[in-house]
Amino acid sequence: MRFWAREKSSMSSSRKVVELFYDVVSPYSWLAFEVLCRYRNVWNIELKFKPAYLAGVMHGSGNRPPGMVPNKFHYMTTDLKRLSNYFGVHLSPPSNAFEAMFEKGTLNAMRFVTAVAEKEKEGDMLVERVSRELWKRIWSTDQDITQPASLTEAGLKAGLSANVVKEILSLSKSQPIKDKLKSVTQEALEYKVSAFNLHLCTLCLAHQKIFVVEKYNKMSLHIFPPFLQCFGFPFIVCQVNGKAKVFFGSDRFELMAYFMGNYNGLGIY
Amino acid sequence: MRFWAREKSSMSSSRKVVELFYDVVSPYSWLAFEVLCRYRNVWNIELKFKPAYLAGVMHGSGNRPPGMVPNKFHYMTTDLKRLSNYFGVHLSPPSNAFEAMFEKGTLNAMRFVTAVAEKEKEGDMLVERVSRELWKRIWSTDQDITQPASLTEAGLKAGLSANVVKEILSLSKSQPIKDKLKSVTQEALEYKVSAFNLHLCTLCLAHQKIFVVEKYNKMSLHIFPPFLQCFGFPFIVCQVNGKAKVFFGSDRFELMAYFMGNYNGLGIY
Repeated sequence: MRFWAREKSSMSSSRKVVELFYDVVSPYSWLAFEVLCRYRNVWNIELKFKPAYLAGVMHGSGNRPPGMVPNKFHYMTTDLKRLSNYFGVHLSPPSNAFEAMFEKGTLNAMRFVTAVAEKEKEGDMLVERVSRELWKRIWSTDQDITQPASLTEAGLKAGLSANVVKEILSLSKSQPIKDKLKSVTQEALEYKVSAFNLHLCTLCLAHQKIFVVEKYNKMSLHIFPPFLQCFGFPFIVCQVNGKAKVFFGSDRFELMAYFMGNYNGLGIY
Repeated sequence: MRFWAREKSSMSSSRKVVELFYDVVSPYSWLAFEVLCRYRNVWNIELKFKPAYLAGVMHGSGNRPPGMVPNKFHYMTTDLKRLSNYFGVHLSPPSNAFEAMFEKGTLNAMRFVTAVAEKEKEGDMLVERVSRELWKRIWSTDQDITQPASLTEAGLKAGLSANVVKEILSLSKSQPIKDKLKSVTQEALEYKVSAFNLHLCTLCLAHQKIFVVEKYNKMSLHIFPPFLQCFGFPFIVCQVNGKAKVFFGSDRFELMAYFMGNYNGLGIY
C-alpha cells in the first residue's frame, strides 16, 4: 500500500493535504481519525494530525458540548453504537461518560499528545499510535486518561520506550508544550478559509468571547468574518493545490472525496 | 411508481412506517423530507408527515439552535450549499437567515400546515405539497412565510383552491389546531422508543426546562429516561414490525436503510 501510494503520488500533479484537528475526548473525532487513516493511501493524501483542546474551542467559539443537552447526550450513545458498527471502530462509551468528558477532561492527555508531536522529528506515526491508544482507553475500554500512570501505559502500548515516555511526560508539563497546545487550538479557531459568500453581520465581542449575534440598526444587517472557523471537533481542512475547504464532523466523507477528486460518481455535489 | 409500491407492499410481509417530525424553519429537515419522499417507493415504506414546532422542541429539551453559535451558523451556510448540490435540492439561504429563522419564526406557517393535515381526509399529499412550497419560499426563493398572503400563495401553488386556502387559514387560527401543533411537538419530545441501554442519571428540572445533568451522590450515578427523545429536527422514527428506531438529522440514511432491510452490503452497520 505504501509503495502504491508513493507511486501514485509521483504520477499525480496535485498535492493534497488533509489536516485533522482533534481531541481524544471526542468520539466522533475518533471515527474521522480512523476513516482518514484508512483513506490516506486510497485518496493519496498527506494526512496531518493536529492535536488540540476541544474545551478551548468550545470556549473560544461560544459553543457548548452537544452532550450538555440530556436528550442529545442520550441519542448520541445510540448513534455512536450504530456508527461504531458501521465504521468498524470498536467504540463503547465509558460507564460514566459525563464524568469522563466534562469533569475529568483531557488537558493532560492532549498536552501529552502535543509533546509526542514535538518530540517526533519525522512524520507522525507516533502521534497516530498514541492518539489511538488514548481513544481506546476512554472510548473503548473505559480506562482513565488523566493520570501519569495512564498516559505512561498508553505510551508504552503505542510502542514508546519507558525512557521516552518519561521524557515526554516531563515535556508535557513544560510551558512550551502548554503554549503549543494553546496555539494549535487557536489555529483551529482562527483558520483562514474563505467562505463562498460574505454575510454582513455584527459580532458582539464580550470578554474575548464571540457569542452573540446582534442586530445592527433597523436594517438587521449582520457582519460575519469571511472565514470558516472552528466550533467543534473533528475539524478537517482539505487542501488541494492551494485551495482549501473545511469540513466538520464524521459524516461528510463523500463531500471531501469529491472535493479532492476521489469521487466516482456516487452523487452530484 | 405508485402501482409498483402497492404491489410490492402486498408481496412483502413486513410493515414499515417512517414518521418524519419537521418544521419548515429547518433546512436539514427539508433535505430529509426530499430524500425520504424519493426513497418512499424504493424502500417500500409508509411515510407519515408530522408537522411540529421546532422552537417548542428546543425549549422543551433545553437545546438551542445551532445557528446561535456564529462560527457554526457560518459553517452551516457552506455545508447547506454543498448538501444542496449533493442531494439535488435547490436550497439557498435567505438573505437574512438569522431574521427568518430566529425573529420571524414559523408558528403561523406550522399551524397552517397542521390545518392542512387536519383538513386532508385521506393520505397526506397536500401536506407534502404545502410543506414543500413553504420550504421553497424560505429556503430557496427568499420569500416570507409569516403573513396570510404568503401562506395563501404557498397553498395555491400546492394546488389548493382559493376557497380551501381561505378555510384553512381560518382553521389555522383555531384553538384545536393550536393544540394539535402543540401535541405533535410534545409527541416528539416524549417519544417512547427504548434506548438499547439504561443510564442511571438525574435530570435537573428547572423552570419546566430540562437543561442540567447533575451528579447524584458521590457515586456520580446519573438517571436518564430509558427512551430516545427529541432535541431537534429532522427527527425520524422508523418502525418495522412493531420495532422502532429513532434517527436525528439528514446524514443517517444508510443506517435507516439497513434497519429497514434495504441495505445492499455497502457497509457493516
